[in-house]
Formats: sequence, C-alpha cells, structure tokens
Amino acid sequence: MRAAVLVEPTEFELEERPRPSPGPDDVLVAVRDVGICGSDIHYYEHGRIGDYVVEEPLVLGHESAGEVAAVGENVTGLAPGDRVALEPGVPCRRCAHCKRGDYHLCEDVTFMATPPHDGAFAEYVAWPADFAYKLPDSVSTAAGALCEPLSVGIHACRRGDIGTGDTVLVTGAGPIGLLVMEAARAAGATDVLVTDVVAEKLTRAEARGADLAIDVTEADLETAVDEYTDGVGADVVVEASGATPSIQSTFDAVRRGGTVVLVGLADEATVPVDVLELIDNEIDVAGSFRYKNTYDAAVALLADGSVDVEGLIDFEAPLDGIDDAFGRAMDPTAVKGMITFDG
Amino acid sequence: MRAAVLVEPTEFELEERPRPSPGPDDVLVAVRDVGICGSDIHYYEHGRIGDYVVEEPLVLGHESAGEVAAVGENVTGLAPGDRVALEPGVPCRRCAHCKRGDYHLCEDVTFMATPPHDGAFAEYVAWPADFAYKLPDSVSTAAGALCEPLSVGIHACRRGDIGTGDTVLVTGAGPIGLLVMEAARAAGATDVLVTDVVAEKLTRAEARGADLAIDVTEADLETAVDEYTDGVGADVVVEASGATPSIQSTFDAVRRGGTVVLVGLADEATVPVDVLELIDNEIDVAGSFRYKNTYDAAVALLADGSVDVEGLIDFEAPLDGIDDAFGRAMDPTAVKGMITFDG
Amino acid sequence: MRAAVLVEPTEFELEERPRPSPGPDDVLVAVRDVGICGSDIHYYEHGRIGDYVVEEPLVLGHESAGEVAAVGENVTGLAPGDRVALEPGVPCRRCAHCKRGDYHLCEDVTFMATPPHDGAFAEYVAWPADFAYKLPDSVSTAAGALCEPLSVGIHACRRGDIGTGDTVLVTGAGPIGLLVMEAARAAGATDVLVTDVVAEKLTRAEARGADLAIDVTEADLETAVDEYTDGVGADVVVEASGATPSIQSTFDAVRRGGTVVLVGLADEATVPVDVLELIDNEIDVAGSFRYKNTYDAAVALLADGSVDVEGLIDFEAPLDGIDDAFGRAMDPTAVKGMITFDG
Amino acid sequence: MRAAVLVEPTEFELEERPRPSPGPDDVLVAVRDVGICGSDIHYYEHGRIGDYVVEEPLVLGHESAGEVAAVGENVTGLAPGDRVALEPGVPCRRCAHCKRGDYHLCEDVTFMATPPHDGAFAEYVAWPADFAYKLPDSVSTAAGALCEPLSVGIHACRRGDIGTGDTVLVTGAGPIGLLVMEAARAAGATDVLVTDVVAEKLTRAEARGADLAIDVTEADLETAVDEYTDGVGADVVVEASGATPSIQSTFDAVRRGGTVVLVGLADEATVPVDVLELIDNEIDVAGSFRYKNTYDAAVALLADGSVDVEGLIDFEAPLDGIDDAFGRAMDPTAVKGMITFDG
Repeated sequence: MRAAVLVEPTEFELEERPRPSPGPDDVLVAVRDVGICGSDIHYYEHGRIGDYVVEEPLVLGHESAGEVAAVGENVTGLAPGDRVALEPGVPCRRCAHCKRGDYHLCEDVTFMATPPHDGAFAEYVAWPADFAYKLPDSVSTAAGALCEPLSVGIHACRRGDIGTGDTVLVTGAGPIGLLVMEAARAAGATDVLVTDVVAEKLTRAEARGADLAIDVTEADLETAVDEYTDGVGADVVVEASGATPSIQSTFDAVRRGGTVVLVGLADEATVPVDVLELIDNEIDVAGSFRYKNTYDAAVALLADGSVDVEGLIDFEAPLDGIDDAFGRAMDPTAVKGMITFDG
Repeated sequence: MRAAVLVEPTEFELEERPRPSPGPDDVLVAVRDVGICGSDIHYYEHGRIGDYVVEEPLVLGHESAGEVAAVGENVTGLAPGDRVALEPGVPCRRCAHCKRGDYHLCEDVTFMATPPHDGAFAEYVAWPADFAYKLPDSVSTAAGALCEPLSVGIHACRRGDIGTGDTVLVTGAGPIGLLVMEAARAAGATDVLVTDVVAEKLTRAEARGADLAIDVTEADLETAVDEYTDGVGADVVVEASGATPSIQSTFDAVRRGGTVVLVGLADEATVPVDVLELIDNEIDVAGSFRYKNTYDAAVALLADGSVDVEGLIDFEAPLDGIDDAFGRAMDPTAVKGMITFDG
Repeated sequence: MRAAVLVEPTEFELEERPRPSPGPDDVLVAVRDVGICGSDIHYYEHGRIGDYVVEEPLVLGHESAGEVAAVGENVTGLAPGDRVALEPGVPCRRCAHCKRGDYHLCEDVTFMATPPHDGAFAEYVAWPADFAYKLPDSVSTAAGALCEPLSVGIHACRRGDIGTGDTVLVTGAGPIGLLVMEAARAAGATDVLVTDVVAEKLTRAEARGADLAIDVTEADLETAVDEYTDGVGADVVVEASGATPSIQSTFDAVRRGGTVVLVGLADEATVPVDVLELIDNEIDVAGSFRYKNTYDAAVALLADGSVDVEGLIDFEAPLDGIDDAFGRAMDPTAVKGMITFDG
Repeated sequence: MRAAVLVEPTEFELEERPRPSPGPDDVLVAVRDVGICGSDIHYYEHGRIGDYVVEEPLVLGHESAGEVAAVGENVTGLAPGDRVALEPGVPCRRCAHCKRGDYHLCEDVTFMATPPHDGAFAEYVAWPADFAYKLPDSVSTAAGALCEPLSVGIHACRRGDIGTGDTVLVTGAGPIGLLVMEAARAAGATDVLVTDVVAEKLTRAEARGADLAIDVTEADLETAVDEYTDGVGADVVVEASGATPSIQSTFDAVRRGGTVVLVGLADEATVPVDVLELIDNEIDVAGSFRYKNTYDAAVALLADGSVDVEGLIDFEAPLDGIDDAFGRAMDPTAVKGMITFDG
C-alpha cells in the first residue's frame, strides 16, 4: 500500500509499505478521507510539538474515516463494507484513568500521528474495532473523518457543562472554535458569541450562525460581551485560540460563577492570570484535552443534521498531492483541507 | 377588573374585583394570554387535586403572560409597557430548599391557582418582579404564557441530565410530552422516540420531529426501542403520561445505567416496580416536580426559535368564553387552549 | 492445589486441581482469606440466584485477598511477596460501559463465583494484575478480603452523593448495612440512623456508632426519623435489607429533594411504589449494583483506620471446615465468616 | 450597648451605641464570641481591602456567635436563650445567583464588617433569623463563632469535590489551611499533605493529623508529593496561602485530571500560569469564594466531634482589650484570637 511519510520537516515521501494485518480485535480499514490538522502542519513545519519529536519517518494524519476491508476473528458488529470513523487514540485499558472513564488521560495511549505512532495518510490502517464507529448512509466518510475535531468541540462543551439557554463565548474562529460553536448550539446554547482577529473568519462564523462576531482588533471584548448580556457576562467561555491576550480576556468576559474552558493550545509558556478575580468571582477553569466518549455523539449529531462539518472543508486533494495540500492548509484563512482516496 | 372565578365545580362566575396594588418589589401586569392546563381542568371538574381542595371561590390559570402596567418602588429592570411571562410559584426565599436553589421544593410557596392562591384568569395580576421575565419583541405573550409548560419540559430534561447525542424516549404525547420532546432536542438529544395510545397525538408528535412514534396499543415498547437502539435501550426515558403500564414499561426501555424521569402525575396510588431490575441495571429514577431556574432558558429558547410552543395552541377564547373553552380543552385530542385578553 | 467445589446444592467437595498459570498481564495469588457472602450461601442452598444457575461444579468465594506468588511478564508494580486484595469482577474493557468508566455494568464481565466463573475458595487464583490492589503492612489480608463488601458500601454512598454533614438512614444492619454505615461516616455523614428487625444486629450497629438504632418491629420509622430530624427527613436513605416493607418505607423517611439508594437485593418480584410521592417530593432513586473504582479508596480507608471491617468477622475456618463454616454463616445473627489459608 | 469601632487605621474606639431592634424576621443576639480574622487585621492596618475602603467608622468582626435575646414576630424555630452561630453574609434573595443557590455570589449581599456594613465586635447584633444557626448544648459559642472559617474550609472542599479515599494537598497551614484539612478529612480524604514556610505552623499541622508536613523552604514540593503518591500526584490541591510560588506549584503537585482549588487570597495582582500544562493534564481550577449552605454542616461536624476548631484558639480577650488582641493576632505564628463577652 502507499503511505505519505514525513521524512524530515517539510518533506513527504510516498512509500510503498506492507498492508497491515488486523489483530483478532481489529478492523482493517481502507482509508477514504483524512483531514489535515494544525498539529499535522506543525510537525510538517517544525518536526516536533513540544516534547514530541519526529525522530523516525512518520505517517501523519489522525482525522480519518474509511471502509472496513477485513475484520479480526473476535470482531462483532462490524463487517467488510461498513464505513467507519476512526477514533485516533487507543488507551491501555488498564490504568486508573481508563477505569474511571478518563481514557483520554491514559499515559500509555497510542495516538495516530504522534511520534512514534503512524497516522492515517496511508491506504490502509489496522485499528481496534471498538475505536471504529460505523457511519450511517447519511454520513459521508469526509464528515466521518471530521468527527475528530468535532469531538474536540463536544468535549470542550461538556467540560464547560454547557446546557439549555446558556450564553457561550468562543474565542477564536478557527476549525476548533467553529466546531465548539456547533457543539455548543447542539448542547442547548441559545446565544453564541465568537471572536477572532481575521475578518474572513468572523464572516464565516456569522454565516454559520454566530449571534455576535467580535473583531478583537477593533472592539473591546468585555464591553461587547457586557452589552450583549446586560452586564452579566457569558455563562461559559471556551478559549479556542491559544493567544495570550485572548486567554487573559476570558476572565473578564465570563459571568460570576461561570466557567472558562481552555482548549486552544497556548502559544506561550506561561500566561499571567488574575487569581484574585478568579477567586472573587468563583470561576471554574477547565483544561480540555482531546476527548473521550464523543464519537457516538458526533456520529449521531451528523446523522441528525444538527451539525455541519462538511461546510468547513476548503479543498480536497489526493495523496500524491499532499505537498501542495499542506501548502494550501497553511493559509491563515483556510479552515480545513482533506486528503481523499479513491473508493 | 374582571376575573373568572370558580365558585363550584364546573361553574365559573365572571366577577368584578378590585385591581390589585403592586407592593414595593412587585409589578402590576395586565394579563394578555393564559393557557388552560390539565390541573385547571381537574379543579374545574372535581374541585380538588389530591389534598388541595377548592374551599373558597378560586381564580384558576397559572400559565400567563402580559404587559407591565405599573411597578413598585424597588423594581428596577422592568418598566410599564414591558411584556413579561410570569413564573407562577413564589417561594419563601428563607428555607433550606430556597437557599440550596431548590426553591421549587419550598413548602411555603405561593403558587397561582392552587388553593388558596388565586391565578391569572383575571385582567390584572400583581406579582414579584423577580418572577416576571421580560419577553423580547420576537416572542409573543401567547408563547410567553407557555414558558410554564415548557419549563416543566426543560426541568424534566435537566433532571435526566439529557445531553448531546442522547437517545430519549418520551412516554405520552400530551402537552408535557411534546414540550419534553422540544426541550430534549434543545439539550442535544439526537434521537427522540415518543409513545401514546391516541393516534392523533402520535401523528402530531411525528409532525413535530419525533424520530419514532410508537402506538403502545399496537406495538411492544421494549421491542420497538431495542430495534431502534440495537438492543441498547434509551439513555433517558421521560415518563409524561402518568399511566401505570407506561410507568412500568420505562424500566424495560431504558439502557443499563440510564435514567428514568417521572413527570406525568400518576393516576393510581401505587405502581408495582421491579426493584431487582432497577438495582441490576443500576437505573436512576428521578421524580420531576414543576421547575426551577428555567424561565430565562425558556425565553431564550423561544427567542432563538429553537423551540415551538405556539404550534401547540389548538384554540383561543376570550375571558367571557371560558366555559366553552374549558369544554373544548377536555377533548382528549386537544393539546392547548388559551384565554386571551385584548391588549 | 486444593479447591472447595460446589458439586450440587449444599455439597462441597475438596478437589485437587492444577495450579493456574498467570497470563502475561496476570498475577498468581496464593489465597489467604476469603469471606463468605450471602450470595455464596444462596448458591450453596439453592444452586442458583435468579437467572444464574450452577450447571457445572463451581468454586464459590469472591471476597478474597492473598499473597502474590508469581507475576506475568507485562506486570509492573506488583512482585512476589506483595499482599493484595482481589477485585472479583473483570470487565471486557471495550464496550461503551467500560469506556464510560461504568465497567461494573459491562455485560461481558468475568465475576468470581458467578456461573460459569470459578471463585476464590482455592489455594491459588490467577487474576489480572490491575484488579489486584497492594495492601500496606498495616492492613491484614482478612481486612483486604473485606474490601469487597466495603466497596459495595462505598459505591452505594457515592450513588447517594453522601457528603459532609448529611443525615443518612440505613435500612438493614447486616454486613452491607454496617459497611454502608462505615462508608457514610467516612464520606462525611454526621448522623447515621439504622434499622433492623433483629435486636442483636441493632445492638451491634449501636456499638459501631449508629446515632439511632430503630427496631422497626416496634417503632414507626417515619415517626422516629421525623423526631430525630425535626420533621425534615433523612438527606439520603440507603436500603440494604431487600425487604419489601423496608423498601416502601424509604420514601417516607427521605427528605424532600433527597435520595434513596437501593442496594439490598429485593426478595420479591415487584414492590408497590407511591409514584406521586416520588414526584411531589422530587426524590431521586438510585439502584446501586456492585461497585467501580472503589478498591483504592477501600484500601486507603483501612490503612487510615477510618473504617473497621475486622470487627465484623464472627469466625474463621480452614478450607476443609467449609461445610461447617457455611452452616454457621446461615445463622441470621451472624455477620461475617471467613475461610482462611495458612501462609 | 458597647461596640468597638474602627475610626481610622489601627485605632479602635469603644462607643456606646443604641441596641439594634430586630425586624419581624430577625433575631436580636447578645454576642458572646467573635473571632479575629485576617481580613479584620487587614482593615485595621490598612483601612481597606482592595476596592473596599473604610470611609466611615466601622465595626469589624464577622466570625460570631451568641445568645438570642429577642425574636421578631415572624420568627419560628428560635427563641430567647437559644445559642446561635451567625452566618455573616445576607444576600438579596432575588437575583439569579440567589435563585440558583449561589447566594454567596449575590452582588447585593450585606456582609458583616465589610464597608459600609458593621460587624460583630459589639454587645448586640440584629440579624435575619434564617442566617442564625442554633447550637446544640455540646457546641460552645466560641466553636460556633468559628463555623465561619470552618465554612470556608467546607466550601473549598466541596469546590474540589473531595471524596472518600482522596489524597489532598493543602498549601498553607494558617487558620484556613488547617480548617481545610479538617474539612477534607471529614469529606473522606484519607491522605492529607500540608505545606508552609513557618516551622511552628507545620508542627501544629502534624499534631492535628497531617500525614505529611512539607516545609517548602527546604523541600521541593513536586518531589515530595511524587514520593508520597508513587508519582501520581494529589487528587485535589487546595491553595490556602495566597503566595505566588505556592499558587504556581499547585499545578505540579496535582494529578492528571485532578482539581486545584484556589481559596487563599493572592497577594499579587497576577500569577503566571502554565496554561499548556493545565490543558495537557486536563486540570480543573476552581476559585472558592466564601461559602454557601455550609453552616448546618459545620454545626453538625462540631456536634459530632468530627472536627476540632477550639484547638485553633490561641487566646481570648474582652472587648476593652481589643487593641492588645489585634496586636497579638498579628504575630505570624498565631492562628486564632477571640474577643469574648460575658454571658
């Protein structure tokens, strides 16, 4: 089979590799669609993300879906021909985190496209069947692949305990911010405000139903939120930009007793936080890391039509166009590029 | 002012009464729309509901909205001309329930149209301003009045902790069942199944978006739910009929580890429950009584267009047509009748 | 190795069986102490519990602790000589329940001494290392074995969300009721009331610190609880008797907005429940099935001296005295008998 | 009656003032014991705390208990002669926070000894009866007065959702840290670690049952916690010192998926926080402000003997010795001084 392998920063090689064999609890999946994520781009440009360093050639890609080609002997519930979305992190199943249901915090997770584990820019992937989620006919594999970033949004909203009638502020209108918006609406938020510093992104957010799009290069966030909420503040703020000023501003925009969810990976080592304000207003701050138990919900939201992920796709490219695709994906106004394989 | 007073079962008298004076923390509201609720009909027919007996002439009606005519001296945030929905239960504000935020469980509540407290089938009502919720221009007073049954639905869904991607079964497609459906969708349920024994009600439920409408006079509920859910069962079942067989069936339809919310007032003293099943499947059963902290959410859902309550209205009648209106409201296929006042 | 095998109701045979070999993720444990549980007695007397039928000879015993004799190749954190308590239910690790952290609800669980899975009345058991919990020096293997019923108590208290300052009523002063008492105190309950119909059990409960012991053959429960709580009722009631009148009485003893946890296995098919009372008082009813994620806490409570389990032990007997031991364990005033093995 | 009035920084005057008259819902309380809190000392020294400025002469003191001298006409449940602890913050009872049960976040609270509201260093206080909690015979008024700081500890532990078997780190062994320790144990924590920079305070913490007392001037906190917890980290960290390095260290000491509660008032405007760590380890950070619904629990813990507050009292002084008492209270090794009145 063919796979796109990152051999060194900014250099992919298309290699022929042996098709993987599924173990007894695995499915073999013919990959159909894989999203290009910001972390893929980061590895592509820099060869590392923090402590994770690409030391051996690595297959990127962790937002994937495809068609089951074969199943291991213990697998029930899936059969060749089924279309599935793949959850990219498989935990140890044995540690205290796994037993508590916090399998996303497992220290021994195998996560696609995180060194040294290969990802999904390849024609076939063998994967544990219980991390492959069947897609109904109404959901395309392109949408199925985007269950991954949608899961990030669902999980962030759960971390913020967003519910019916809530006013939610999302800082950052990139792919995660936009999918947090979708997940927040699905969870009952009636008022969703969004910020960014790029006008095109705000326009897109408004087109997707943001009640208020705030360009923080021009407007004061606290003033804008106070005006919208009659001085109360947002019930929940989900920080999806990672920018230091944005992280700091969340505490001014959230209501007393409200929750700030941090999901955008901070671009600086430390951020000065006003701890007195956090105590006086009894704010909850919740770090949000990846996701757990979201894929069934993500597929259900897509099947229900409650959430639109395909509208985020800017372009699609074949595997042998991956270099060009990564180039386009680095455009700051782009939201989502996809690598597609012939069915 | 005029008020419709129940002087004995099935007999209203239209009386002239003094217009109430708002206290310093109250608003005086010119009533515009009042829904006819099942409990109003029950008092009308029987003169009592359980231990609550109509011993003095009583003004019924507790689903109300209107226009502020005057405000007490301490009132801020509301002014004459504002349109408001009235939350009909005002608690003591001092007991342990009130302090915990469970003010709906306050034993000293003043609840409209529950003896000895008069309700809203009257031209004016004086009411604490903090239980009057301003309606935006986009929400009619008829819709505002129906914040009351919608609140019952929102609260029941909160009691069941309904969230994104849940499969919810609602047993009973009367007004409460239909509004539980709406609230469940708003809270993220992607699959909503509904039961009834009246074909017209099921048809209406389907028209309003039920994914599966089950006529339990014909189909076996457990079989139907198992088929829809691949044998898993519903994440949450909200029992909204009060019928003994329906209450019993909820435990067969809910998934292991799921929740049954009981909101429909049971029509028999006791219901035989399979306690072993409840333990083996570790089911949560949550009684759901009225509501708390729902009106802001209800108004927001209406303003957002997420929920339709006006579509439930079968007919409207003026105050002097109240006898006829109660007659029509007793039709088992009717969902909601309204008494309206000229603006 | 020797094992006590139930070959038919009321008949144990001491058999020589091959010593089990630990798999790569298992530990081999030389059993030291095994408690005799009510379910063991039930299988011994009747050969079945509900749908679980002893069709092949079965080794009973699931409350066990011992000494690690060997470890599989993947095992870290445990070594020969370590003393461990064994959690008797090992789930599939792959289903939705397992992933949510509700592994105790897994339908594919391997549970000791539940047909067709053998238990711990045997000299050796091989068991997954992650379900073996190291005991500190201060905790005996007899106490370690009783982490199992203590876990039932901890889980029931968690299901009732018992916290600091709560008043808790425990109905039934058998081993589970007494350990619910201990777990409730550990979780912050300041007032623990207990009921039974056997005077000796109430005396023991009082000696172990019950604030009020109520003999329900003589006193009216609701009156007694109202008197103790100034008419408020218990915050949480944990039903640990399984008796129909006791189950019914819980709803009269719990406060408005309180929680009833059902953990005692009901001895009748169905129990008539006053559903209207459950709704009007907005009661939560929580079935409590076995336990999850309790063993670390149980060991910590024992190490801390917060909880006494050894005081529950009425007698100890060697494996070849198991017939006599089961006879003594059937005495209704007995709380806990143990089978012990030489070290 | 006599009252100690702060007329300007570091200057009390003993004034004769009219005895207050209780309103219809109030009790008049003859004050017996009042604790000296760090905030009293701060107002005494600086005449302000942040935005709260002492502009008019102010009576300090908000940790108080006494004897009911008279009751208003609506008061039931309390009578002259009853001994009561006073909860010092009385909210508006009408805002969204109050209705949610978060009355401690009410913006219109009347809080004793916070400008412009007088406190309890006076012979009599009139106070709403529902914020006066009856003390049983076994609880002294000195202990009753300390329900206030104990409430801060209970609330912080609730904010951290501390439960059975948890390992809890408390940073700072002042009065709040010590009472967090007590409340954590009461809530089920089996392992409580404490830090400070003053040796005497650590010695006291150990004498009160800390499992590990860490002098952070000498030991590395992360290393010490890792050693104690086998590299896992603390389930919950409660920061009770307000010192910047301590706040920062909490994130290194908490386990993945754990919770940091911030209760110690930060002594610097902003604290640099490692946001990436907070996200990667999915930490919850909970600001903890005062308390709500804790007094019943605090009184129950004292009556039960679960918690010791009297052992924290370093000295007692009469009202006319208040200047000297404040002098002694400023000693950094002191924990708690009390002003007492003759009964």
